[in-house]
Amino acid sequence: MSFEISERDLSGRAGVLRTRRGEVKTPCLMPVINPVKNSIPPRELKDLFGYDMIITNSYLILKHFGSDAPDVHELTGYEGTIMTDSGAYQLLIYGGVETDPIEIVKFQERIGSDIGVILDTPTGGFASRPEAEKTVEETIKRARSSLEFRDDPTMLWAGPIQGGRYLDLVRKCARIMGSMDFQTHPLGSPVQIMEGYDYPTLVDMIVTVKRNLPPDRPLHLFGAGHPMMLAMGVALGCDLFDSAAYALFAKDDRYMTVRGTFRLDRLSELPCNCPICSRLSQKDLLDMPKKNREEALARHNLYVTSSEMRAIRQALREGSLWELVETRSRSHPKLYEAFKRLGKYTNYLEENDPVIGKEPRGIFIYDRRSLIRPEVIRHRKRIIENYSRPVCKEIGVFLQNPPEKPYIRSKEYQDALKILPEGEFHICFYGEPFGVVPSELSETFPLSQYECSQGTGMDVSRDLRKFIRANSYRKVFIIDPGSSIMIEGAMTLRSIEDVRGHLDEDNP
Amino acid sequence: MSFEISERDLSGRAGVLRTRRGEVKTPCLMPVINPVKNSIPPRELKDLFGYDMIITNSYLILKHFGSDAPDVHELTGYEGTIMTDSGAYQLLIYGGVETDPIEIVKFQERIGSDIGVILDTPTGGFASRPEAEKTVEETIKRARSSLEFRDDPTMLWAGPIQGGRYLDLVRKCARIMGSMDFQTHPLGSPVQIMEGYDYPTLVDMIVTVKRNLPPDRPLHLFGAGHPMMLAMGVALGCDLFDSAAYALFAKDDRYMTVRGTFRLDRLSELPCNCPICSRLSQKDLLDMPKKNREEALARHNLYVTSSEMRAIRQALREGSLWELVETRSRSHPKLYEAFKRLGKYTNYLEENDPVIGKEPRGIFIYDRRSLIRPEVIRHRKRIIENYSRPVCKEIGVFLQNPPEKPYIRSKEYQDALKILPEGEFHICFYGEPFGVVPSELSETFPLSQYECSQGTGMDVSRDLRKFIRANSYRKVFIIDPGSSIMIEGAMTLRSIEDVRGHLDEDNP
Repeated sequence: MSFEISERDLSGRAGVLRTRRGEVKTPCLMPVINPVKNSIPPRELKDLFGYDMIITNSYLILKHFGSDAPDVHELTGYEGTIMTDSGAYQLLIYGGVETDPIEIVKFQERIGSDIGVILDTPTGGFASRPEAEKTVEETIKRARSSLEFRDDPTMLWAGPIQGGRYLDLVRKCARIMGSMDFQTHPLGSPVQIMEGYDYPTLVDMIVTVKRNLPPDRPLHLFGAGHPMMLAMGVALGCDLFDSAAYALFAKDDRYMTVRGTFRLDRLSELPCNCPICSRLSQKDLLDMPKKNREEALARHNLYVTSSEMRAIRQALREGSLWELVETRSRSHPKLYEAFKRLGKYTNYLEENDPVIGKEPRGIFIYDRRSLIRPEVIRHRKRIIENYSRPVCKEIGVFLQNPPEKPYIRSKEYQDALKILPEGEFHICFYGEPFGVVPSELSETFPLSQYECSQGTGMDVSRDLRKFIRANSYRKVFIIDPGSSIMIEGAMTLRSIEDVRGHLDEDNP
Repeated sequence: MSFEISERDLSGRAGVLRTRRGEVKTPCLMPVINPVKNSIPPRELKDLFGYDMIITNSYLILKHFGSDAPDVHELTGYEGTIMTDSGAYQLLIYGGVETDPIEIVKFQERIGSDIGVILDTPTGGFASRPEAEKTVEETIKRARSSLEFRDDPTMLWAGPIQGGRYLDLVRKCARIMGSMDFQTHPLGSPVQIMEGYDYPTLVDMIVTVKRNLPPDRPLHLFGAGHPMMLAMGVALGCDLFDSAAYALFAKDDRYMTVRGTFRLDRLSELPCNCPICSRLSQKDLLDMPKKNREEALARHNLYVTSSEMRAIRQALREGSLWELVETRSRSHPKLYEAFKRLGKYTNYLEENDPVIGKEPRGIFIYDRRSLIRPEVIRHRKRIIENYSRPVCKEIGVFLQNPPEKPYIRSKEYQDALKILPEGEFHICFYGEPFGVVPSELSETFPLSQYECSQGTGMDVSRDLRKFIRANSYRKVFIIDPGSSIMIEGAMTLRSIEDVRGHLDEDNP
């Protein structure tokens, strides 16, 4: 097995997970299937919907078929990579299971699962701190003993990270589990946290895990499969997802979209163009027998989810994952709160985001929330901390960002060049979204590859002040037609023409 | 013919336009077809993609077939409603056409067009003011004479509104054209304005037209067909759209999405689940012969556009058009600027928006931009201007909005009731997004049917101050654990418990 990362954007990674059954393109979502009966034949999940990998439950197989159950590929008819869960979720929900950690490890090997999960002890969303501590201890203990009983070296094992909303426990669990011989790590039991729409806490949990796990192991956001939140999960560094929602929602006549879930009977038209919705109307669906409707809705939900995964991988490779996250965060105010929570993790996002832009795709800036994207944060930081002006250019002249890009092709810049004699003038631009842009850098990505909606509310004078202080000019002119910017040690002029007068004063 | 409006949301209307060929569900987008050859047979536009109405160009038919051209339905094989354009666009682009206003009116009648357009004089996006004035004069003159030459009373006629970016000219043109016997009105030549991404100006133009046209006539945003901007067009009151973009973009290997347009060769995966994209990969498309690829892309573009129209009609009927506009405005920063421009037209949006909520759909509030939606504006205005407190309740007690909804079911409210004796206390709630909510109204739509992301930056104390002043209480307590709200004539207390002490002072 190997996990190879080929592209990055924000903290997201696109890559390939190789299992003994073949290649899985990541980020990847696995539909959850029932081991016994499915209205949609599992082989169609690959052939028709393009899912490279599915997940089913080994504990349910054990209960249904006993210990001499058939191979899971044979059982399901699915030829690709199959991951099996261990019954830990049943443990969380029902308080107990009729198996033990060693038996279920052996059993998963026997039925030919490609990726197994140990039977850990999920923390869940409602545990008290002492309970959470206990689940982490127990999970680590079970992980150690489970790994000893493995026999098949070609099978991969997933080591869940527990701790729930207690971030120090999550950190501890991630460090210890990450030091063991697991190949992938599910973040345990976010389902209850997501059911309470507590997406900001989920952001905290994911970042905590990511910072404490070996970066070369895929992170699996266990039980998270609503298309509206997948982009954010990927942006934070999750590589694998699984979803039973497509089927559970269908059973309940609920219709998934990237903008949220709708009850079928409250829709009037179907806001989707998948093969189901292009052919049938809402009325057609309502008129169907329940069983057929459930299948049609499950198919729709699967189409929506798979195209969202393609959209995410596409955006990631293109470098526009931020824009996708920004759009999707308008699917629910609680998801938007999670988006705002990213403001707490700008360093995390910036550290992982590739420095080299993926031209020719520019970046889009909408409002002050867009200003925390790595490209903006990075430029504003570096231009203060790592930049020095050319030594001979001792007079700083700061022009407002012209509408034309690159700035040095603008009329405003060309006019300035005509007025200011060669040599000692250092012309820079100021404005949203990048703060200060020295003219000699203005063609560098992304300084001329962006679109910015005016009025982000950015405090440009803060950037100007820092930049001017850091570059100890002999003289500084800020050209500001509105004369609203006042900075110590700088002279604010209405027009570039006015610079001449002030030079003459110096050298009469 | 009739145009019947059945549902409203913001300034958008859902309804039915009846022509002699049948019913057209509005808002409606008409694909533009070439009168002579189309890679996609026009009949499929209805049968496969669900387009109730198409548009083609009578001038091109005249040039190609001469004056004895066949019936346009026979020519195209499309059985539904067909609108024909007049060559005015060719006039704008090429500066002249080989027909005249009377001939083309007669010709459109002869070929059996269901909705004809007079040969007006488009202003375009680049006209000087004197030029624009001339086009408006000429359009009005031509409208008068064209209408006189109509013979067929079952055919509908469209009277274009010119004036371009000169809003006073648009207003004048709309008033005069609106007084004539037209059945629908295209807003003329926004194409050049959209090509320059000047969406805010387009907002100004649409609102100006809408305010000056009879409300019972459909407004057609001529040449606007990109799926990313249709929701905003509908929200502003446009009923009809047409689009050649699906075919033009396909010819140019461009792939439309509601999030913008992509060059096919720069995509890696196809971020869509239409019947084309569910079956083919980006590589499959690139490997096709150009002609087949163009057809496949055109089909994809048509699927995307038709499902967006369904999404828009669905949102409109549900009362969530605002949310859709908010999401789509993140497709491009210039579109977001148009969204911000809506702030200039809150009265316009509120006047038209239905007062009665479409329960059970609540409203979503994301940030300060969401605060200009009609439901919020309306409550904040009315609660100051039209509300009086119950006469006997002379002591105002203002609690922060509790997390639970309706507020009066919250623990905070129940606690307050226990502490404050019946009768003279008027308990109200304050906070984002509605400002002040008197407890007796707290179950009214949408005061408990909303989700709000905290931190919109709303100035609640302004609402409190106005409300308190308007209701002349004998005494006012504001319960604010942070003690940050200070309002003249009101006492700010940390806890509801503290009210008791202050009452005792009064009545020892």
